[in-house]
Amino acid sequence: MPDRSPVTGSRRGRRSGSASSRDAILDAARTEFAALGYRRATVRRIATAAGVDPAMINHHFGGKDALFSATLDLPFSPAAEIARAAAGPRDGLGERLVTRLLELWDASAGPTASSVLRTALEHDGTLEAVRAVVVEALVRVVPAEGTDPDEQRARWRATLAASQLLGLVMGRYLLGLGPLATAPRAEVVRGVAPTVQRYLAGPLD
Amino acid sequence: MPDRSPVTGSRRGRRSGSASSRDAILDAARTEFAALGYRRATVRRIATAAGVDPAMINHHFGGKDALFSATLDLPFSPAAEIARAAAGPRDGLGERLVTRLLELWDASAGPTASSVLRTALEHDGTLEAVRAVVVEALVRVVPAEGTDPDEQRARWRATLAASQLLGLVMGRYLLGLGPLATAPRAEVVRGVAPTVQRYLAGPLD
Repeated sequence: MPDRSPVTGSRRGRRSGSASSRDAILDAARTEFAALGYRRATVRRIATAAGVDPAMINHHFGGKDALFSATLDLPFSPAAEIARAAAGPRDGLGERLVTRLLELWDASAGPTASSVLRTALEHDGTLEAVRAVVVEALVRVVPAEGTDPDEQRARWRATLAASQLLGLVMGRYLLGLGPLATAPRAEVVRGVAPTVQRYLAGPLD
Repeated sequence: MPDRSPVTGSRRGRRSGSASSRDAILDAARTEFAALGYRRATVRRIATAAGVDPAMINHHFGGKDALFSATLDLPFSPAAEIARAAAGPRDGLGERLVTRLLELWDASAGPTASSVLRTALEHDGTLEAVRAVVVEALVRVVPAEGTDPDEQRARWRATLAASQLLGLVMGRYLLGLGPLATAPRAEVVRGVAPTVQRYLAGPLD
């Protein structure tokens, strides 16, 4: 499992006495996300419920996206990973995103990945959060200099890409669909990257 | 909900006294599929458990695929629908499959579709069955006259296609991903059909 510090902004271990407030925040966040859904839950409300200053949430987690990722026990922040993988030449966008997705899930595959996914699917609040975090992150990586730079079109592209990325994760890691589950990463990238590239930056009609 | 008779071969309502044996078969099938998984469960074992002749299962359901679909309360048989939609010119394969998928799920959308999908994801036996039924059905519709007609390659194509179709169903019906959930069917087909066409019958490398 990769060190989660650079991604979540957690500084566990550097400061004594911070573990308990971190845990209190996580507990409060799980409750708030489940009760209100991702959009309506706020860092301020979670801080109040946890009995800490809102600044502590940014200190421990770096923001709402990363706090949500931490409540899922994901060893990475989907939004941060998408933004990082998207940086670079437009032509390789799909390839970089699919490669990074596979690297992350291959590394944390098996029971952990499956249980996170199942948990998400069983709880509407978590579903809403996954939806919000992943789609918003993908909207931001649709190339703005494209032929259709407007917001609605970017959102359409992002949801199409999300459908393929989600289906890939489901098929390879949760359902174990035959060769898709066992193929070398490079072969999966060759198969799927052109789809993601077209959805985000290619001709759709 | 469409009449399920043409797909499942059910003749409910035409014969008096058949409802109880049909229900007994469904109960036994749910138990056997859950206990053994789709592949190891057999029509013969299910018939024995239900206290009926195996021929009654074909009479009521038309076979193992359709019996499995009936245990899920799906108003259609995935395998039969895939085979039917695939018939026709090779060029329109992806378009016909995506169109039919959307027609079926749009018609049964909402709580039913979501609960079937969630049930499938929560139970390994059901997961295995969905995997087996859908992937085997897709393997059979990969054009044999392609550049790579061998079985392994067909299976690779089928699982890639399954990943996109699955992600589409998840995104549009279960997660409700923004515009993907609300877009007119024709627009979704324009977006997704080229992906499925390439996976099943186009150049992959």
